[in-house]
Order: sequence, then C-alpha cells, then structure tokens
Amino acid sequence: MAQRLAAWTQFTKRSALQDMLELTSGPEYISFGLGLPNAECFPTEQLAVSANEVLLRQSNHLQYAPPTELLKQQIQLLMRQRGVECSTSQIFLTAGAQQGINLLARLLLDPGRTVLSEEVTYTGFLQVLEPFQPRMLTVPTDPMTGIDVEQIEQVLQTEERPACMYVIPSGHNPLSYTLSRAKRLKLAQLAAEYEVPIIEDDPYGFLAYEDIEIPAIKSFQSDWVFYVGSFSKILAPGLRLGWIIANKEIIEKLSIVKEAADINTGTLTQQIAANFLQKDEFTNHLHHLRQEYRSRRNGMLDQLAAQLGGAGSWTIPLSGLFIWVCFPESINTMELFRESITTEKVTFFPGSVFAVNQNQMASSSIRLNFSFNNHDRIEEGIARLSRLVKRHL
Amino acid sequence: MAQRLAAWTQFTKRSALQDMLELTSGPEYISFGLGLPNAECFPTEQLAVSANEVLLRQSNHLQYAPPTELLKQQIQLLMRQRGVECSTSQIFLTAGAQQGINLLARLLLDPGRTVLSEEVTYTGFLQVLEPFQPRMLTVPTDPMTGIDVEQIEQVLQTEERPACMYVIPSGHNPLSYTLSRAKRLKLAQLAAEYEVPIIEDDPYGFLAYEDIEIPAIKSFQSDWVFYVGSFSKILAPGLRLGWIIANKEIIEKLSIVKEAADINTGTLTQQIAANFLQKDEFTNHLHHLRQEYRSRRNGMLDQLAAQLGGAGSWTIPLSGLFIWVCFPESINTMELFRESITTEKVTFFPGSVFAVNQNQMASSSIRLNFSFNNHDRIEEGIARLSRLVKRHL
Repeated sequence: MAQRLAAWTQFTKRSALQDMLELTSGPEYISFGLGLPNAECFPTEQLAVSANEVLLRQSNHLQYAPPTELLKQQIQLLMRQRGVECSTSQIFLTAGAQQGINLLARLLLDPGRTVLSEEVTYTGFLQVLEPFQPRMLTVPTDPMTGIDVEQIEQVLQTEERPACMYVIPSGHNPLSYTLSRAKRLKLAQLAAEYEVPIIEDDPYGFLAYEDIEIPAIKSFQSDWVFYVGSFSKILAPGLRLGWIIANKEIIEKLSIVKEAADINTGTLTQQIAANFLQKDEFTNHLHHLRQEYRSRRNGMLDQLAAQLGGAGSWTIPLSGLFIWVCFPESINTMELFRESITTEKVTFFPGSVFAVNQNQMASSSIRLNFSFNNHDRIEEGIARLSRLVKRHL
Repeated sequence: MAQRLAAWTQFTKRSALQDMLELTSGPEYISFGLGLPNAECFPTEQLAVSANEVLLRQSNHLQYAPPTELLKQQIQLLMRQRGVECSTSQIFLTAGAQQGINLLARLLLDPGRTVLSEEVTYTGFLQVLEPFQPRMLTVPTDPMTGIDVEQIEQVLQTEERPACMYVIPSGHNPLSYTLSRAKRLKLAQLAAEYEVPIIEDDPYGFLAYEDIEIPAIKSFQSDWVFYVGSFSKILAPGLRLGWIIANKEIIEKLSIVKEAADINTGTLTQQIAANFLQKDEFTNHLHHLRQEYRSRRNGMLDQLAAQLGGAGSWTIPLSGLFIWVCFPESINTMELFRESITTEKVTFFPGSVFAVNQNQMASSSIRLNFSFNNHDRIEEGIARLSRLVKRHL
C-alpha cells in the first residue's frame, strides 16, 4: 500500500519523539514538553452557560452556516489590542491557527517553490510545508533578539523571491523571544518592498507578561501581512477556533480553499465562543490568565536560577508559553531527553526538533513549557532536570 | 497580489452559481438547491443536555487531546449497520466527511497524477482535486443504476493506473442512485486486483428509506477501500464530525496529515456527540429522521407526478437527500435557473455544475433537495418549477 501513496509521504513519518512523549504521559513523568495551556484556567462554567444559551435559545447553531458575524465582531474588537484596525469582512474564521497556516500555505505555494524562515522555527509550519517539498531559505535567529532582519533583506536582494516568509513575533515557539517594534516595522517594509507575503503567526500575542505590548506586524502593513490568530491559548484549544486577517481578495480565495478542506468551521463552537466573548467576562479571564502564567513563568525562572544556576542560560520571555534553555555545546539534548525517560522522568523538547537544518545552538538547547504545571510540579521538574544536566557537565 | 499566489488559484474562483444561491436565500425564494438537513430534526435538547454533562462533569474536553475513544466505539457499533466490522484503531476522526476526502486526497495524490471518477459527481471532490491539477479519467454513469463498473474495468486495463477512484455508493450526490450489491462487490474486487484505492464517500449510507440496506463497499474489501463517514446528515453538520475507516498503516499517515491540517478535531464536539450516542437515543433519532425524510421524499415525488407530469423524468431515491430530474435535451437547466431567480423564485442546482466535462444529460437535468423544506413548501416549490419548465417545452 505504501508505494501507492503520494511521493512526499515516503519521507514523512511520525517522529520517534512523538511516540516517546506519548509513552511518557504517565503520572510518574513531569512534562515540560507539549505547549499545553493550563486546563484549570479554562472558563468551563461560563462556557457551559454559553453552550446552554446557544443550544436552547438560538437557531442555526447546528446547521451548515456562514461564519458567525458576532464572533468576527468580537475578533475585530480584540485585534485593536494588537494595534490592528480591520473590518469584519477582512476576518476569516478557521479551525485554529494551524488550519490558518495550512490554508495560507495552500494559497501561496506551488510545489518546489521557495520559502523563507528562521533556522529554528515551529514544527507545525514545517509539517505544513512537507507536501510542497519547498526549497528552504533560512536566516539566523536568536533566542533573545529573534529573527535576523538584516539577513532577511540580504536574502531578498540576492535570492529568488520566496512565496512567503513565516514569522512568530510574540512569545516565539520555540525560542520564546518577542520581536522588537523596530524589527516588526522593518519586516513590514521588506514584505511590501519585495512583494513577499508574511504569514504572521500570533497565537501568543495576547499573552504579554510585562507592560510592554508591541503591536502586530499587521498593524504596520495591511496588504502583505496575513495575520493568523487563535483562541487555543487564550480560551480553549478544544474549541478549535482561530482566524486570519487579510484583504478581501485573499479572503475570497481562502473561502474556496476552506470549503474544499472542511466546508466550514464548526458553527456550534463559534456561537459558544461568540456568546462568551460578548459578555465581557473575557477581559477578566484574560487578565487572570496572564497573571497565572506570569506567576508560573516567574516560578520556573526562579527554579532555574536556584537549581540549574551556571549549568545553563535561558530566556526571560515577555510573552507565550515557553522558556528556551541553552547548555554548553558538549551537551546533546536529544541524548539528554532519551536518558531522562528512564532516569529522572522529566520531559521537554530537545531543540534540534525545531531546526530546519542541523543547528549547533539548537542541538544543545531545550524548550520548556511553563503554563501546564503548577508551582510544585515546576519545582520538582526543574530539580530533576538539574540533576540530569549536572551529570553531563 | 493575485500573481503571487499558487498557480492553481489563477483558475479557481467562487462560482457565479454560489453567489446567486447566496443572493436568493431570502424568504421569497423556495430553495431545493443546497443539500441541507432539516434543522427541526436536530436533537437540540438532547445535545444541550450532553453539552452540560460534558462541560460540567468531564475533564479534558477543552484541552488538546487525542481522538475520543468513546466516540470511536460508537462509530464501531454504527458501522455494523453498514456491514463493516472494524477495530477502533482503524477509525480516524475528522472534522466532517469533506475533511476526510481532503486528507485522503493529500495522502494519495501527487500533482498531475490520474484520478478515476464518474462523469457526474460531487463538486466537493472536484474542489479537493483542484490544487493537484490531476488528469481525470471518467466513466459513464446513470441516475438509476449508477457508475458503469464494466467501463471502470476497461479503463483500469488500458490506462495508466489512477491514484484513486471516488465512489458515492448510497443516495449519490447529485444523481441520487444507490449502487447494487453486485456492483459494490465488483468495485471491491477491481480495487484489490488493480491495487487502486477506492474513496468510498458514504454520508447518506444510514439514510435508507426502504427495507433494503446494502452493505458498504468497505464490507467486501478491507485493504483497498477507504470508507468516509459523517455525522452531518444523521446528527448535525454544525458539529463538524466525520470519520475514515482504513488500515493502521494509512491511519498513521493520516494522523500526520491531520496534525498539519488542524492539529486535532474539536474535543468538545467529539465528547458531546459521544455522550449523546452512548445514551442509545440515537436509534430512535435515526428512525425518526428516516421516517421524516421518507415522507418528504414521497411528498416531492407525488408533487412531481401531479404537477410536472410528462414534462420530465426523475429518480426514486432509496437513500440520501436528492431527487435527480431529467428534462428534454432542448432544455438548458442553467438558463432555467437564471430565469427562475427573477420569475418563479424557486432554486435548484443545474446538473452541469456536477459534470466533470461537458455532459448533455447533466445539462438538461437538475438536482432537487427534499430534506430541507416541509410539505407545504415542497408543494409550492414544485408548482413553481412546473410553471417554469412548461414555459420552455
């Protein structure tokens, strides 16, 4: 059967890491691996009220239906927090940000085209690209300062024009940086100047932990930036709701790709989310969520300082769900991970998983998630990690 | 911007018909156009109870989560009605049947490959194919007896092996036929003999209106048939839930394609559906649904006989949501549709919409949906249609 499948599937398989993470989901493991939100922060009871109101008082919540206008209006309001003014006709609803990226890639890419990204980036984007087998142009990136914008200009000047650039400006997954305002502005200018669309993947843009809120790249350039948003990290991933902001020409094409993909986004969950959002409890919810995640981030940073100390260096993320920890080059974190499974039983993603090509910095780094575990588990997990690392120094 | 998009998008655009159907959604129109289920048949109150139970009593319904085992078990039981015995590990959950077809196409097709289908088929399948720009091999088909299986064998013997065949065995959309047991068996044999996978699209398989229930093609051949099921027509499309049944090797590859598409299917709606299905009210629900749709089908058939009479001929569907009506060759139903918008205000799909290439039979036929409207609206709508047609005889 395998030889009857599309050619690209011969090279793709479930990663061994994915299998290992599943094997290590038991209670004896402490997982900093997956980027899961904290389930205790989901507004479960309010959503139950909304579900009831929608199911018993509204109509057309179970039928095929066009995108829910009320939800688009709520997204329009939310986007002002990201500095973006748009009409509801520029908002396209998706089943989460991953679908947003996938639909955009199908709209933008022909097989074998060129794509521009960082050397270390979100694996979900790389998975989206697989069927297209693109030529990858990569530029250096840094866990503190992010994608090297000067290098991007260099590449755009000298190489074949890429079909798109992919950027995660806030709380980068996995590197955790938040891009400066100046870099965002420059990226917006480059996109317009070289006519290369940016896919701005912003699931963590609403999760800022300091008083600095940097506007989305989209706020600087409306035509060449396709903004991808998500309710997965700020409401609940189980709803599968996200959005794209683009101009009308693109929205029209997206609606064709979306219809072929899954007809439309689930009407029931759209209406539950819209019902909840319009009640204005969302502002409190988001405030509480930021407080809780800030506290967990700080807790993990404290534990890293207290327990890991000089054995590594790490980022202090302004946003998002991750801390990136770099170890000395002598440490191979994929080996560290394999060892951890049978010894300390703490899990994390080895940095090499996110590297487009071989990358020394990534090979000796790890991504830690701080949103999922409570303070006690964070303390215990970092203690285990420290013992593990110190055996290798 | 348009010239920066993937090449295939240059040839794709929202059909004028789609626009017209949207323009004609007002109450002055009677629509037999879209394949909508009857919203009054949705088990709304029971789903509200299930939503409450899930949201307030269960955990992990809002988190990223693996597919709901309980839902797979319910599907496993349901599939016995279609003659299919399978393990839950062979069941893959999707956001509706359309996504099932889309994921399978991505797994099976390389750009430019060959695909085998009927001359007249579901437009959603053709939309899925667009980005691959495949070479289409078509075989004749018939509103009464369905796809010409002898011609399929002929094509398989003489042509390059296709990447897949696409079949809608029960209540075909748009032709409304239900394929005989003998043809299903032969298709299953051909798939295995020529090693060409069948995508068996079966959203109407549970909507049989006579006492004859013909097993799915999958029941005759387990390896080379990928079964695609859906809750959209038997529960509610707004939940976006469907499934694929395939062997484990394919399921593993599908899980990679699915993760890249939208991570996972909405956990909340999966659990609501599973909760409802396990209560065993579903059997009554399905019985009631069949009764209601049988009654509407019969009502439309009666009206066609009484009002349209000798002006056309039509199918008596054993399953599904559609009746296919053929008019004399002199009638072009696309023109009929355009005229209807301003005169009689009854809408339907002109048959040519479903034709892979030009097709005379399709050009003088229409697809009528009988599930959406009640008896009074059906009577009034068919009266309008008859006036419209008789002006052209």
